[in-house]
Amino acid sequence: MSGVPSFREFGDGSATVWTWSTETDKACEDLIFNHLKLHFPDHKVNPFSFQITAQCICLRFIGEETTAACGVTELTDEPTWIVDPLDGTTNFVHGYPFVCVSIGLTIGKVPTVGVVYNPIMNELFTGIHGQGAFLNGNPIKVSSQSELVKSLLSTEVGTKRDKLTVDATTNRIKSLLFKVRSLRMSGSCALNLCGIACGRLDVFYELGFGGPWDVAGGAVIVKEAGGVLFDPSGKEFDISAQRIAASNPLLKDAFIEALQESE
Amino acid sequence: MSGVPSFREFGDGSATVWTWSTETDKACEDLIFNHLKLHFPDHKVNPFSFQITAQCICLRFIGEETTAACGVTELTDEPTWIVDPLDGTTNFVHGYPFVCVSIGLTIGKVPTVGVVYNPIMNELFTGIHGQGAFLNGNPIKVSSQSELVKSLLSTEVGTKRDKLTVDATTNRIKSLLFKVRSLRMSGSCALNLCGIACGRLDVFYELGFGGPWDVAGGAVIVKEAGGVLFDPSGKEFDISAQRIAASNPLLKDAFIEALQESE
Repeated sequence: MSGVPSFREFGDGSATVWTWSTETDKACEDLIFNHLKLHFPDHKVNPFSFQITAQCICLRFIGEETTAACGVTELTDEPTWIVDPLDGTTNFVHGYPFVCVSIGLTIGKVPTVGVVYNPIMNELFTGIHGQGAFLNGNPIKVSSQSELVKSLLSTEVGTKRDKLTVDATTNRIKSLLFKVRSLRMSGSCALNLCGIACGRLDVFYELGFGGPWDVAGGAVIVKEAGGVLFDPSGKEFDISAQRIAASNPLLKDAFIEALQESE
Repeated sequence: MSGVPSFREFGDGSATVWTWSTETDKACEDLIFNHLKLHFPDHKVNPFSFQITAQCICLRFIGEETTAACGVTELTDEPTWIVDPLDGTTNFVHGYPFVCVSIGLTIGKVPTVGVVYNPIMNELFTGIHGQGAFLNGNPIKVSSQSELVKSLLSTEVGTKRDKLTVDATTNRIKSLLFKVRSLRMSGSCALNLCGIACGRLDVFYELGFGGPWDVAGGAVIVKEAGGVLFDPSGKEFDISAQRIAASNPLLKDAFIEALQESE
């Protein structure tokens, strides 16, 4: 692998942002793009050429003539493939086992198909709108935990290292630690969603992640496993907002309250 | 599994401590104890009867007539088995895949054999003093990363939820986030040490974990993989102190400095 991580510091020194490039990203991109183009020619799948975004290199397949910039994805009613060929790039480079390919398909803006595959652990999470969610072909469902204080929370510290962001991130964690059982950080947003879907995790939130490609696949899987998605503020989940929270339905209200109190 | 987690709150309300009990702990205890007793009769292995400690239920095999209370283990020169039949109990109960059996043997107080097995991921880490470290039989070594700012850090938030501890924990994390690439929390101290040993993680520290049984196996594996163990303050590592830091030798000084600045 020639994908040596590169490091870039913002000119004003206030923010430190990691950017990555690996051959694996590109190989996955080619593989997925060619496959989708072959099997869904009417989707007019166009690869959105490699872009180094603020947080990760991602690939977006968007309906013809639609483009996606980081965080400004315009989702249309057309069948739209939203793909991250390598979620958990930092983990991949370090050999930490939480890496995956994440693929989502929206039709009429509704997340309809979700596929998340972790090749290290050989775990394939799938979900199709109205047809359930599965792990390696076996049905999965969210946890039945109803008490936040007994819940396993997952989040991430993200990639931004300006003081404002780090303060907000750690203060939020500090507040939440008094209200949940424990905290996990895996380094993969898509796999955190799958963790909610199969009940390994009870509550998850993340702010400021890369873009819709981090959540498009996992969102379908969570919903089909009986889970709920929402904005950490309690508002409706917006796939373009780079903000997400997920849980089973029993924990939603208490989790939103705890998140609001953590601001 | 009848091991429903139980929850206990300290009488003064200042601390919240989780205690657990699972049949699996007991089954592992019996299996390991009987096996060691059979194969090493001269070690006079005595099971230290089940104790609910501040943080976890653990099993300690200590040389004859030596006892181990939580954090007050008296290590003698006798061959001493220090065992955690189930490290990552919270993960186990939730189905999160970072769980393991951790076994360490000290001879003349020197950690001599370490075995850490994660049955979910089928990863067996082993190390014998002077003979190297292995993952499923293949030699492993620590990462070659020399820059802290490019390092993947691992730590845990522990189980204590009094304000003083939580403040210290999150303030430490806040300070360190400016100095490392990213942060992972797996929920298993022994597997964090193995992560250091095989180079998936670059730097790790934890304060206030259960006891020597969390680190006795991993300590040998880290050392045999070329890594270093030390107290987060920079002092020498003390297996009984419930404080540990680990890294490759290249990162040790910078990591200690960062840890000291985070206090």
